[in-house]
Amino acid sequence: MLRGSNLLRLADYNQAVILDLIRREPGASRTDLQRTSGLASQTISNITRRLIDAEMIRESAPSDAVRGRPSIPLTVNGDGAFAVGVHVDPARLTILLLDAAGEVRHRQQLRTPQATNPDEMTALIAVSTGRLIRESGIDRDRVLGLGIAVPGPLDVLTGVVLDPPQLPMWRDVRLRADLHDATGMPVLLDKDVTASATAELRKSAASDFLFLYLGSGVGASVVTQGQVLRGASNNIGEIGDILVDPTAEDLGWSGRRGGLAAACVPEALVIQAVQAGLMPLPDLTDYLAIDDACTALCELAAGGDAAASAILDRAARRVAVGIGVLVNFIDVPRVVLGGPTWNRLSGAFLPVLEDAVRHELVVSRETFTVVGSAVGEQLAAQGAAELVMDHFLAPRASVLVMD
Amino acid sequence: MLRGSNLLRLADYNQAVILDLIRREPGASRTDLQRTSGLASQTISNITRRLIDAEMIRESAPSDAVRGRPSIPLTVNGDGAFAVGVHVDPARLTILLLDAAGEVRHRQQLRTPQATNPDEMTALIAVSTGRLIRESGIDRDRVLGLGIAVPGPLDVLTGVVLDPPQLPMWRDVRLRADLHDATGMPVLLDKDVTASATAELRKSAASDFLFLYLGSGVGASVVTQGQVLRGASNNIGEIGDILVDPTAEDLGWSGRRGGLAAACVPEALVIQAVQAGLMPLPDLTDYLAIDDACTALCELAAGGDAAASAILDRAARRVAVGIGVLVNFIDVPRVVLGGPTWNRLSGAFLPVLEDAVRHELVVSRETFTVVGSAVGEQLAAQGAAELVMDHFLAPRASVLVMD
Repeated sequence: MLRGSNLLRLADYNQAVILDLIRREPGASRTDLQRTSGLASQTISNITRRLIDAEMIRESAPSDAVRGRPSIPLTVNGDGAFAVGVHVDPARLTILLLDAAGEVRHRQQLRTPQATNPDEMTALIAVSTGRLIRESGIDRDRVLGLGIAVPGPLDVLTGVVLDPPQLPMWRDVRLRADLHDATGMPVLLDKDVTASATAELRKSAASDFLFLYLGSGVGASVVTQGQVLRGASNNIGEIGDILVDPTAEDLGWSGRRGGLAAACVPEALVIQAVQAGLMPLPDLTDYLAIDDACTALCELAAGGDAAASAILDRAARRVAVGIGVLVNFIDVPRVVLGGPTWNRLSGAFLPVLEDAVRHELVVSRETFTVVGSAVGEQLAAQGAAELVMDHFLAPRASVLVMD
Repeated sequence: MLRGSNLLRLADYNQAVILDLIRREPGASRTDLQRTSGLASQTISNITRRLIDAEMIRESAPSDAVRGRPSIPLTVNGDGAFAVGVHVDPARLTILLLDAAGEVRHRQQLRTPQATNPDEMTALIAVSTGRLIRESGIDRDRVLGLGIAVPGPLDVLTGVVLDPPQLPMWRDVRLRADLHDATGMPVLLDKDVTASATAELRKSAASDFLFLYLGSGVGASVVTQGQVLRGASNNIGEIGDILVDPTAEDLGWSGRRGGLAAACVPEALVIQAVQAGLMPLPDLTDYLAIDDACTALCELAAGGDAAASAILDRAARRVAVGIGVLVNFIDVPRVVLGGPTWNRLSGAFLPVLEDAVRHELVVSRETFTVVGSAVGEQLAAQGAAELVMDHFLAPRASVLVMD
C-alpha cells in the first residue's frame, strides 16, 4: 500500500478543501484560508498543522505584516505527492512525473512501438514508469497513482479502450485494470483531449476556450466557465468527420473525403505530399513512418518549398473552417491548439488561422484569439497526471480511478 | 412599482432557496425541506409561513402520517406570480402568460408583421401583453416581468439585438430598454435557442441533450448535467453554415451552399420546391409568404406527392449529417427538435432522423434517441418566461434583467 495515497484518502473533507485552496492559490495565509473556506480559525490551524506534519504543505518566510501577527504564506510541498502521467499517441508515447506543486519533474518521450499489442504496451509503460520513479530519486510511497490519456472512444467508467480508429490492435482493452495489475498503482484512464484541456486550463488564465488536439488524429475539447466539458459518455470531441472542403481531392483514404481529419492529420498530409510528388509513399500501416514523413513535409515547407508550403497553407485554411463550425456552435472567444503534431504545424498554421477563422464567424468577436498551447507537447500526459492529483487531493473526487 | 416583484426582490437568500426547492419538488413537506436545505426547522417554519402569507405557496391536504405529525405537502401557488414570455420568429410571434407553478395560462400566436421596424414591433408586443394580462383576469401586480426570445446574435448583457440575418431591419436595437419603456416591466432578453432549451429542460426528465431549433432559421443549444450552456457571449448555437452535403444544388441563396441552413430552413425548402416545379416562387423578402409556402410543401408531402416527399426526405438526411457533427463533438445521448417549423416537418423527419444520425456517430450509443420537443411550438416563449421566473424566484439570480 502506498503511504501517500493512504494519507490522503483518509483525509477528511475539510482537509481536502484547505489543501485544494492552497494548491490553487499558492501563498495563501491561514487568514486567507479562513475567509475563503468559511471554516473556523481553530479548524484551519489544526488542518494546516496536520498537512505540514504530513509534508504536504510548508510555510514560507512571512511577509511584513502591516499590523498584528505576520501573515505566513502557505504553499504546497512539491515533494509531498506525485502522479505519473502517460499519453499514448499512435506515434508518440510520453511518460512524465508531476509533483504536487504542478511541476514536471521528469519526462520521457518515446516513439510508440508499432504493431504492438496492448499487453506489450502495458508492460512497456510499467517498466518505463518504474524506471522514471527510480531515476527521479523521489519517495515511491508518495506517488498517488498513474493517469493515462489515450485516443477515444473509451468507456471511462469501466476503464476500457473501445475501438480507437488509430490503434487497430486495441479493441475493448481493459487498459485501466491491466495497468493497475502491472504497476500496483491506482490508475485513471481518460481521453487525450480531456486530459489536454485539463492541463491547459491549469496553466492558462483563460476560462473559456476550445482546445484543438493535433496528433496522429484530430480531436477537440471545450472549457466553459473554468470547467472542462467531457461529454455525457466522456467521449467529447470526435470532430474528424466535419466537412471542411466540399471540393477536396480524393485521398483514397478511410477518413471522410473533405473532412477535418483528411485536412490535417499526418497521414492525410503525407498522402497529399506524395500526390504532389514531394516524397515516396511511406508504409501507411506504420505511424512512425507517417510521423517521420510528416516531419519531412513540415521541414520542406519551413525551408521554402512552394509545393510543401501550399499543402500546409491549404490545411490551415481547412482547419479554420472546422474551427469556425465549432466556435459558431459553442461560442468561445479563444481557441488553443496543441498535441504531438502541433509544434511541427504551428509555423505554417499560426500566421493563417486567426484571420481565416474570423472569416467563418457568425458573431463578430473583437477579442477572438487563436493561440498555441501554453503547456507544450507533453500536455496530454501532464493533464492525465493532474487528473490523478485532483482525484486524490481535491474535495470533489472523481469516480474514475480504479485501485 | 409591482407588488409581486417587490415582495420577491426583498426576499432573503434562504427564502429563495426554500421557494426554489418547492418549485422543483412540488409536494415537499417542511421535513423534506429541512433535509434538502440543511436549514433549521424554525427557519423553515418562519419562511414557509411568510411564503404562505404572501400567497406564493400553499398547503395541500396532509398525507396519512405513519407516525407522529401528519406531513403537509407544500406546493407553489400558481396565482402567486406570473411572467410574460414572448418569442419573435420572423414568421411567428408568440406571447404567453406563465404562472408560478409552470402552467401556461394564456397563449397567443400571431403572424409576425412583415417589413415592420423595431419600434412598431415593440409597440405591438406592449399592447398584446397588456391585453393578455387584462383578459386573463390575473393580478397585474403579480407579473414579475417579461422575457423575450429572439434570433441571435445578441448582446445579452446590454439587451441589444445586434444583426440577426433574418430580421434585416433590426440592427443594434436596444430591445430590452425599449420594451421596458413600453411596458413598464422588468425585461429579460435572451436567444431563442437558450430559452427553448430552458423550457425543454423543465418539462423533460433528460439532463443531457442537444436541442435543435427549427424556425425561420436553424440553431442549437446544449444541456449538459442539467445546465443550459449559453456560450461565453450568450450566443451559443450558430450552426447554419455547417456543411452537410458537398453535392448540394445551388439555391441562388445567401446561405452557404451545402450548409445546414440551406438544407432545412423554410426559405431554402421553398426554393427547392420551386426548382422542382411544385409551386410558384413566393416573395422571398416576406417571411409569411415563405412560411405559407413551406406549409404547402409539407402538406403536399403528407398527401403523398413524391417530389415533395423527396425534398423533405433529403432535408432530413442532410439535417442528420449536421446533428451527427454536433453529437460527435459534444457527446450527448439525446437530441430534441422543436421550434415554429418543427410540427410541420416532424412527420417527414422523425421516421428518418434517428437511424440517419446513428449512421454518422463515431461512438456507438445503444441508448441514442431523437425526439420532438415535449413542450410544443410555444417553447421559446415559455422558456423566456421561465428565465424571468428564475431571475426573481431562484436563489442564484441571473444578471440579465433590466428594470
